[in-house]
Amino acid sequence: MQGAERVDVQASGGSYPVFVGSGLLQRLPALTAPHTPSGRVALISDDRVGPLHGEAAAQSCRDAGLDVTYLSFPAGEASKTRKSWSILTDQMLDEGLGRDSLVIGFGGGVTTDLAGFVAATYLRGVPIVQVPTSYLAMIDASVGGKTGVDVRAGKNLVGAFHPPVAVLADVDLLETLPDSERREGLVEAVKHGAVADAGYFEALVRELSQLVGATAASATSAVLRSVEIKAEVVGQDEFEGGYRKVLNFGHTLGHAIEAAARYEVGHGTAVALGMIGEAAIGEELGVTANGVTERLESALRTLLPKLGAPVEVAEAMTFLGADKKARGGRTRYVLLEEIGRAGRGEDWSYDVPVELARTVLTRVLGQA
Amino acid sequence: MQGAERVDVQASGGSYPVFVGSGLLQRLPALTAPHTPSGRVALISDDRVGPLHGEAAAQSCRDAGLDVTYLSFPAGEASKTRKSWSILTDQMLDEGLGRDSLVIGFGGGVTTDLAGFVAATYLRGVPIVQVPTSYLAMIDASVGGKTGVDVRAGKNLVGAFHPPVAVLADVDLLETLPDSERREGLVEAVKHGAVADAGYFEALVRELSQLVGATAASATSAVLRSVEIKAEVVGQDEFEGGYRKVLNFGHTLGHAIEAAARYEVGHGTAVALGMIGEAAIGEELGVTANGVTERLESALRTLLPKLGAPVEVAEAMTFLGADKKARGGRTRYVLLEEIGRAGRGEDWSYDVPVELARTVLTRVLGQA
Repeated sequence: MQGAERVDVQASGGSYPVFVGSGLLQRLPALTAPHTPSGRVALISDDRVGPLHGEAAAQSCRDAGLDVTYLSFPAGEASKTRKSWSILTDQMLDEGLGRDSLVIGFGGGVTTDLAGFVAATYLRGVPIVQVPTSYLAMIDASVGGKTGVDVRAGKNLVGAFHPPVAVLADVDLLETLPDSERREGLVEAVKHGAVADAGYFEALVRELSQLVGATAASATSAVLRSVEIKAEVVGQDEFEGGYRKVLNFGHTLGHAIEAAARYEVGHGTAVALGMIGEAAIGEELGVTANGVTERLESALRTLLPKLGAPVEVAEAMTFLGADKKARGGRTRYVLLEEIGRAGRGEDWSYDVPVELARTVLTRVLGQA
Repeated sequence: MQGAERVDVQASGGSYPVFVGSGLLQRLPALTAPHTPSGRVALISDDRVGPLHGEAAAQSCRDAGLDVTYLSFPAGEASKTRKSWSILTDQMLDEGLGRDSLVIGFGGGVTTDLAGFVAATYLRGVPIVQVPTSYLAMIDASVGGKTGVDVRAGKNLVGAFHPPVAVLADVDLLETLPDSERREGLVEAVKHGAVADAGYFEALVRELSQLVGATAASATSAVLRSVEIKAEVVGQDEFEGGYRKVLNFGHTLGHAIEAAARYEVGHGTAVALGMIGEAAIGEELGVTANGVTERLESALRTLLPKLGAPVEVAEAMTFLGADKKARGGRTRYVLLEEIGRAGRGEDWSYDVPVELARTVLTRVLGQA
């Protein structure tokens, strides 16, 4: 695509392109059309992003001759449920969308995860084009094929691997994103640096204010580098048998915090607390170099000045057992060796004594 | 596996074995253990097959050292829903089954489809061993990786491709199957003959009484040949881009009849009526040789002497549009050229005028 940076992500069903840049949205119809033999499209957006960008994108696809069914759901993590998935699916069925239709997931991480799971299971799978509109979704959620919903027992516990046919990350859309969400989303970029690229970690720290301000050049280069890292990891291990686990750094404790907070803390906040906690665990166990926790915490507190979560330690602990990374009932953790390098452990994860997890959570949640 | 016939089915994630024979069930623990690193298993069965065979199988797995969570749901197509899927998933989460667990689907087609969809979406996918206990499930449902549930708009409209790691078809289990269900299930065998092997079609007609009686030798050889045919088709076209569609012969009209009957007619009955109707359509369009409808109808009426369904034509017509094989809103049909050979058409399917479908349905449902 002319004027856009492009990263190709390898997947078992073939590779797919991720386009990153400014002014890309106008190319959505041209990108979509080849993947829908019937010309039929379901564009799924939430009721916040939809009025800002989604409805206009649907109209531009219609103007280009596509038959677009526009579907909306209430914004927020609380919508990432089997119920929303059922409603969206039934709406598509009622519209008679066939197997030769295509879904466009247009929004933040909740939308790309939810629309992805709809596409994964609609008539046993139809293609999806992801149009992430937040840092979180551009950097993380829309690349790699993970889709799913939250359930009572925890986050993303029901889902499927369903790689998109293309991803369109137009950094101009970040401009309408609230400042707090930009900050939350950039936590995943910090994670990419922390597990795979120390130079990128340092660059993020240096450019934090331009990134939070969503300056196009700076945003493009960060999104691009994050997507490259993610593509590299996912290309090696699509189904998370081993190396892909490193992307879960911060997410074992993070998901537990998020679930205990009933998803009323941001994903970035929860993962930031999780990373600090898991770095501290690593230092305690001698896996992580001394000082890593401090560097990480300093970067994350600059990004999220009010970092914290109103969660009881005991409550968070109950959610640790249900984590997807559990093996034989034992919760597994990704640990860093250094900023920029995750530890190999056993299959890129480590056993951690429950008491150590509790101690660290207590410290991180400020309840010591 | 010693003493059992074995067919290997190719799938994108690697091939898997289907074992067919008598006295195989005792080997379930040995077959299962290598696929669950944690030793944890969820055995899913319904409340009819469970007390007959499922609970004993769970116990034999426990005796072999596996940690088995036994899960049951109410027997019948009415249970093949997103709700049952949610309940089973939540029960597994409550038990803390991790990603290194395995599901055993133990029962008829409803169970293997439903348990398959649970496994496909549990923590984004865990392996499944299918233990089909009916002709329908042995011959069709448990092989090929299709999983899913029914929704208001129709049958199997939500689901995923999730091939099992192994299938164990012990024909001894057919003995406890009601006579009517054996007959219903053998309809799919007749379909396999009709689309791919005229010699098999004739053999089925010859051995119908032994097959309905579930004589081990006769049942083994029929299940085996059906699995071979299915493996051949699925191996060529796992995701139903083309040739696999031939297995949908009889299912376009069949699913519409089933949905219009609120699933109160058997799947075999519906597909039998569907095959007769689609053969008649083929003859009308000049695709199918003259006399095929008559031969097919004669075989199917011998198998199902009371063949018929209490369904209004208009009601069935409303379900035709929602069929998964619809393209650009148009319903597509698989048509035979001869007994033993499906027509290539365009991508192994044909456009059929709505009026012809209505005429044929009217005749088949005895409302002319």
